Amino acid sequence: MTAVIASYLPRTGEVHDEVKESSPRHVRAALARAGAAAPAVEAVPPAERATWLDALAQAVEAAATGLVEQADLETALGHDRLSGEVQRLAAQLRFYAEVAAGGESLEVTLDRATDTRPALARYRRPRGVVAVFAASNFPFAFGILGHDTASALASGCPVVIKAHSAHPVLGDLLADLLVDTLRECGAPAGAASVVSGFEAGLSLVGADEVAAVAFTGSTSGGTALLRAAAQRPVPVPVYAEMGSVNPVLVTPSAATTRMAEIARGFVASYTAGSGQMCTKPGLLLAPRGADAARLVTEAFRELAPQPVMLTSGIAADVGERMAAMESAGATVLASSGSRESGWSAPAAVLAAGPTALRRGSSVLEECFGAVAVVVEHDPDVDAAEGLAWILPELPGALAATVQTAGRHDPDAARYVDLLAGRAGRLVVDQWPPGVATTWSQHHGGPWPATADPAWTSVGATALDRFLVPVVYQNATDALLPPPLRSDNPWRLPRRVDGRPEEPA
Amino acid sequence: MTAVIASYLPRTGEVHDEVKESSPRHVRAALARAGAAAPAVEAVPPAERATWLDALAQAVEAAATGLVEQADLETALGHDRLSGEVQRLAAQLRFYAEVAAGGESLEVTLDRATDTRPALARYRRPRGVVAVFAASNFPFAFGILGHDTASALASGCPVVIKAHSAHPVLGDLLADLLVDTLRECGAPAGAASVVSGFEAGLSLVGADEVAAVAFTGSTSGGTALLRAAAQRPVPVPVYAEMGSVNPVLVTPSAATTRMAEIARGFVASYTAGSGQMCTKPGLLLAPRGADAARLVTEAFRELAPQPVMLTSGIAADVGERMAAMESAGATVLASSGSRESGWSAPAAVLAAGPTALRRGSSVLEECFGAVAVVVEHDPDVDAAEGLAWILPELPGALAATVQTAGRHDPDAARYVDLLAGRAGRLVVDQWPPGVATTWSQHHGGPWPATADPAWTSVGATALDRFLVPVVYQNATDALLPPPLRSDNPWRLPRRVDGRPEEPA
Repeated sequence: MTAVIASYLPRTGEVHDEVKESSPRHVRAALARAGAAAPAVEAVPPAERATWLDALAQAVEAAATGLVEQADLETALGHDRLSGEVQRLAAQLRFYAEVAAGGESLEVTLDRATDTRPALARYRRPRGVVAVFAASNFPFAFGILGHDTASALASGCPVVIKAHSAHPVLGDLLADLLVDTLRECGAPAGAASVVSGFEAGLSLVGADEVAAVAFTGSTSGGTALLRAAAQRPVPVPVYAEMGSVNPVLVTPSAATTRMAEIARGFVASYTAGSGQMCTKPGLLLAPRGADAARLVTEAFRELAPQPVMLTSGIAADVGERMAAMESAGATVLASSGSRESGWSAPAAVLAAGPTALRRGSSVLEECFGAVAVVVEHDPDVDAAEGLAWILPELPGALAATVQTAGRHDPDAARYVDLLAGRAGRLVVDQWPPGVATTWSQHHGGPWPATADPAWTSVGATALDRFLVPVVYQNATDALLPPPLRSDNPWRLPRRVDGRPEEPA
Repeated sequence: MTAVIASYLPRTGEVHDEVKESSPRHVRAALARAGAAAPAVEAVPPAERATWLDALAQAVEAAATGLVEQADLETALGHDRLSGEVQRLAAQLRFYAEVAAGGESLEVTLDRATDTRPALARYRRPRGVVAVFAASNFPFAFGILGHDTASALASGCPVVIKAHSAHPVLGDLLADLLVDTLRECGAPAGAASVVSGFEAGLSLVGADEVAAVAFTGSTSGGTALLRAAAQRPVPVPVYAEMGSVNPVLVTPSAATTRMAEIARGFVASYTAGSGQMCTKPGLLLAPRGADAARLVTEAFRELAPQPVMLTSGIAADVGERMAAMESAGATVLASSGSRESGWSAPAAVLAAGPTALRRGSSVLEECFGAVAVVVEHDPDVDAAEGLAWILPELPGALAATVQTAGRHDPDAARYVDLLAGRAGRLVVDQWPPGVATTWSQHHGGPWPATADPAWTSVGATALDRFLVPVVYQNATDALLPPPLRSDNPWRLPRRVDGRPEEPA
């Protein structure tokens, strides 16, 4: 009997389809094929690997209508949001193609021999097979073809991807698209495979073939993978992007001049996608006397969100988290009633006093849903319940935001500075969702936002996770891999004796 | 009663001096000062931080005679080796000064706003306080002022260094030199402190102030630190450079034409510094029929090494490791008798058959001493006992070597290729000790050589360990830290909209 994964409709909570779970034999075969493909994938020049990613972008665009339809059934995220996300997926695949083709990530560095040192030639080669755990909440941008897969392939690593069980039929569509497109491009067999099921995921983390793990999900899920990987005879890095509360600070001038607008922006931002975003701003810190809690409550009542969640587990968790926050001293100011059917969960705005924000409190844990907390604090930063007292209690975040009164706000610089070291991205007068895929993006942050703040899962440096240096000492051209040969067959930018050099 | 650390003379095993162990209060104070200094050290422009390192280089050179004398008493490594190492220390301090001043490590990356994306400005900022565990075997190059300290300071991180108990009086001299020189340079108080004692080391790994750990030492020591760091509420990276067997391959042509010379080079290399080097070549793999074992034994008898070890523990361990190797199927071909007094240990050459080289065997564990194993294997790489069968059994290495018959050796490329992924450095026709400090150096390797092969403890990219990215979204100049301001006050190289740009 083959185990199956049910495909549910979150809007009704009903099963409408099912897919087969990967058998242990299937998982072993995918890993073996990936391991065998690693040298072949590595040997493909980066400019050619880039064409695979461009082809995937094109295939995604061609299949967009059907993909969006299926995704909407299984996620209830809505056509508009999902259509935008498909376009974003195509754009990010093309971005990683551009980064791969540029060859900067390989960091070719040559030191010629001198009287006192040997010739040394270094570059970064692919780690090997990457196990990717696709996320539930962005079925395209962080899904089977998402940032982790694209940046791993761009780096020259084969991938074995665990599909998320929240959208299994969509997973099958994306898996076919991935495997078929790579085959048509002439990529080595085994360069990418998709597996499904909880056991399959565990097998990936323990597998000898796997050289790195990339994960986007909850803190508990990420922590479990980190623990499992630590049990391996040979440890491998787990690049886990986990939970984040993403605080928002409001300067005194902004609170005086723009508090109603900020309140609306905050509610729109934290309820988007039913609050199921890692960059959801979950905590608004505003100076006392600006009516922040009342204005956020008004905006919440206007918007009247009716969240439908991705899974029944996520839906159940929202209520539990809210109860925990209340036990820890928060008060519900407003909440939307649950719908009658399906995986609905309350949306809510809560208030808490500064004293509730102590390290380890449930008020400071991520609630993966359309729930946020407003805190009114002493406007004096250095006072007993001011920001300098509150901020060291907050866990690390992916993104922290400062809302200012614009260019002449006298407190803006101090407020931005207060957040240094507390988040991977500092946002000014905008909102954290909508992570642009660019050269300078950083989507990572201090624990528990990610396992190590050094790494990003979005942007050009996402490739860095999957590359490791090797240096050749006193080796002639005939012994060197293509990236290091003097005729530079891959046309890579290089640093020679410490000076950057573009390819001729 | 203050606990003390005895200073021994390895040549006699006698105590000749002692230093005070750091009290818990002293360690707490050093950590608190370092934590408080972190923002000030970060705010110092890299070109100014570079002057600290240059001043340290000068101070080391000025104090060289006394330092070498003390180091020789406590390590028995000899004046020549230690004088060379002091010069090397000065040179590497100057190299890290140059890297810091260049500002490349900060990776300033700016994306201007467009219709579809916000302005993003990224750089890498210092992680914060780094706990450095100084090594026993290179009291200068990897000691209190060594690569880890220099690269952490170059990155803008304060350091709290645990001195090694093998040379405590030297440790006090170097600690004074470090602290005094930084004070004279006007560095923030607490930018560097030195502590000593086992408990002090444990405190560092658990301390809230510590953001990263750098360690050079044994696999057991490194593994213990990794485990301790994993227990922290907020994990921190442990950059552990640990044990490595560093295999040497001899091509069939080299075995025919140069085996006697290779044998002499191998013995000179593995017995240097009494074999107490992380880059010691511990395993020679030569094709059967070239008399490799006999020639290595002859070279060993000519050289007749008489090792004196750094500590009584290391001396005792050599004998235990040899016994374990014999139990696992190796045979002693020759060994030097122990001296009458002091911390002497045997030097030895052992032989083993290819079948003894199975994963987990004691023959494949590092012996930190002048002991090495010769294996004669089937010259056919793909045969049952050929290299393609042996090499996958070997643990990861810092450095692997291929000895060839020169430019026209038909097997050289294949042999180098066989080692890809098995070591961080591939050496051709030279020997692995003597790690040049350059732009392209990589001193790291697959487990257990290091905790993660992504990182190096030597060379320009050693700084990368101590930097983490942060990106500012939609922030005006007034809100940005100096490295990201449009007038580029630190004169850093930058990447703007994907294109590299040198400072004007």
